[in-house]
Amino acid sequence: MRIGILGGGQLGRMLALAGHPLGLSFVVLDPAADTPAAAVADHIRAPFDSPTALDRLAGAVDRVTYEFENVPVAAARHLCERVTVRPPAGALEAAQDRLAEKRLFASLGIPTAPFVAVSDEAELREALSRLGKPAVLKTRRLGYDGRGQTRLGTTDDMSAAWGRVGGAPSILEEAIPFERELSVIAAAAPDGTRAFYPLVENRHEAGILRVSLAPAPELDPSLQELAEDYADRLLAALDYVGVLAIELFQVGGTLWANEVAPRVHNSGHWTIEGAVTSQFENHLRAVADLPLGDPSPRGLSAIVNLIGTTPPVADAVENAGLHLHIYGKAPRPGRKLGHMTWVAASEPERAGAVERMMQLAGEHVSTLPR
Amino acid sequence: MRIGILGGGQLGRMLALAGHPLGLSFVVLDPAADTPAAAVADHIRAPFDSPTALDRLAGAVDRVTYEFENVPVAAARHLCERVTVRPPAGALEAAQDRLAEKRLFASLGIPTAPFVAVSDEAELREALSRLGKPAVLKTRRLGYDGRGQTRLGTTDDMSAAWGRVGGAPSILEEAIPFERELSVIAAAAPDGTRAFYPLVENRHEAGILRVSLAPAPELDPSLQELAEDYADRLLAALDYVGVLAIELFQVGGTLWANEVAPRVHNSGHWTIEGAVTSQFENHLRAVADLPLGDPSPRGLSAIVNLIGTTPPVADAVENAGLHLHIYGKAPRPGRKLGHMTWVAASEPERAGAVERMMQLAGEHVSTLPR
Repeated sequence: MRIGILGGGQLGRMLALAGHPLGLSFVVLDPAADTPAAAVADHIRAPFDSPTALDRLAGAVDRVTYEFENVPVAAARHLCERVTVRPPAGALEAAQDRLAEKRLFASLGIPTAPFVAVSDEAELREALSRLGKPAVLKTRRLGYDGRGQTRLGTTDDMSAAWGRVGGAPSILEEAIPFERELSVIAAAAPDGTRAFYPLVENRHEAGILRVSLAPAPELDPSLQELAEDYADRLLAALDYVGVLAIELFQVGGTLWANEVAPRVHNSGHWTIEGAVTSQFENHLRAVADLPLGDPSPRGLSAIVNLIGTTPPVADAVENAGLHLHIYGKAPRPGRKLGHMTWVAASEPERAGAVERMMQLAGEHVSTLPR
Repeated sequence: MRIGILGGGQLGRMLALAGHPLGLSFVVLDPAADTPAAAVADHIRAPFDSPTALDRLAGAVDRVTYEFENVPVAAARHLCERVTVRPPAGALEAAQDRLAEKRLFASLGIPTAPFVAVSDEAELREALSRLGKPAVLKTRRLGYDGRGQTRLGTTDDMSAAWGRVGGAPSILEEAIPFERELSVIAAAAPDGTRAFYPLVENRHEAGILRVSLAPAPELDPSLQELAEDYADRLLAALDYVGVLAIELFQVGGTLWANEVAPRVHNSGHWTIEGAVTSQFENHLRAVADLPLGDPSPRGLSAIVNLIGTTPPVADAVENAGLHLHIYGKAPRPGRKLGHMTWVAASEPERAGAVERMMQLAGEHVSTLPR
């Protein structure tokens, strides 16, 4: 079976690497010449909104999926008329607009931070008076890796904040004091069967994921149940097929949803070595009408992202137990260039592994905010 | 770093799949249009002995290796003058000729079945009178997966046997009564460091590997030491860099060498899921001047080859714990089309896994000769 992927970044690359052993082959559509997935897939180099390119893709494959949620929804809908597209375009649409996403959470009874839609500075002023400071202003569209977000502390100037988001339609959220960030990754097959990976603890730097621990340490089992319940509701509401990730805040004994990614997710990269079946393989299994695989963890995993710079390969791989994943991208500040995974047998081993990987990633663990 | 591979079969495909995460990229040279590695590597489609193609390959890569030992030695030597080739061409040369191979074993004090070189029917007659029946007649060149071999039982006609090997220069070997077939896979880095995988038990059908169990069950630790000692001697004698496999017969409390493969080996495919570092990754690490990774097993692995036919993918992957590897080759009787791996936690689980995988492979385990 031949799978088309909208987007040819590292997620597309890891999908293809996971899918070839299942006998799948791949065509990626991506406007960039040197896109990481092109090393392991055929590449149609064209804009996402080119009807000719979309038709060419539809004609070349049996299924289409995406690895990037900012693909134009119109492109997904265009493809839907020609070939089976999974997940459904509606999931893409919900995830592209923070307001639609938050309203979806609310309609499903999934708690979120209080939020208000704002479309001009007057609305921002009113929203701020309702929610109070501190608050976070986020553009409704094109936000990822911390882009299009700005925090409003108690002394910050509102006009400056409105300028920082470019005056784009946004939402203002109450900056809730959470204990930690978690994520849950779920897979749904066309026949309704579902698989859930254990909750992951995520630590960010400058808005970009730096470290994930999976399963999350010191986790009350009730939180896993709660996360799976949220995922269940979303999967059902979106008529979802494939892998989906929900970013969550742990607030006291409960979980608040932050956002949903209708695709494989950075916080699930540990599953390549650390789970019986990886998120990439399970996404493809769902897309290709194959039964889902076992999401059970094989140990205590940690991943550290390589951002902007990569260590010499020899320095990384000389650490027995470290698995290196280089994406084949040109270095640029703030760019995710790869990640490292370590599957530990104990918490102390995992803590040491994170420290070692942070050294390799060019940052010391002590600088890392929890 | 860019790696050239002579041969674009499933071994080249699995090398590339293992190497992309290390930031390596690949160019395979192979005369076939639909060669399995072409899905994950650039492909120069040309005969192995085309100087133009070899020069093009040498100019495009930083290292050259091979996944197929019947590449012309002249091609490897041609490349050696232009680019670093690992393993050395001399290893290829030794492995291509059963007589040279057997003499190499003998010169290193590695025991083999008694053998005699034969180049015509008269020599065969004389050899047979020296060794006695039963014996095995094997062509010196181009033998793999049981090709170019014929057994001479006590009543078999010698002239017919000579006809079956096409009258090609051959060796006659005493058919030794061995308990089982084993193999050892070793990796050697340019700085002399070495890594050894645990001995694997191999079961063949019609000369083609069907099942491997790794580590081999009920193994006396002295045999592992002995196998590593044989491998050490070969690696040193061949000035070897990369992964090498030795096929062995267990005869009483000792091991007799059968043949050497200067490449990654079918009996090492379990290492993808069943070892900390796979044979494919370790081969590439050696080729690319990276430190070797840990060859330790992660459990009790079994692989079953898919020969001539493959089960429906869904039937295979619905078995939790089963890892499917499809090579993307057109079906043909006797052709290796894929393999399945299971990493078990206990011997009974492994026995059940072999039975299940044999059912999927289209043969019942009870028909399998030990």
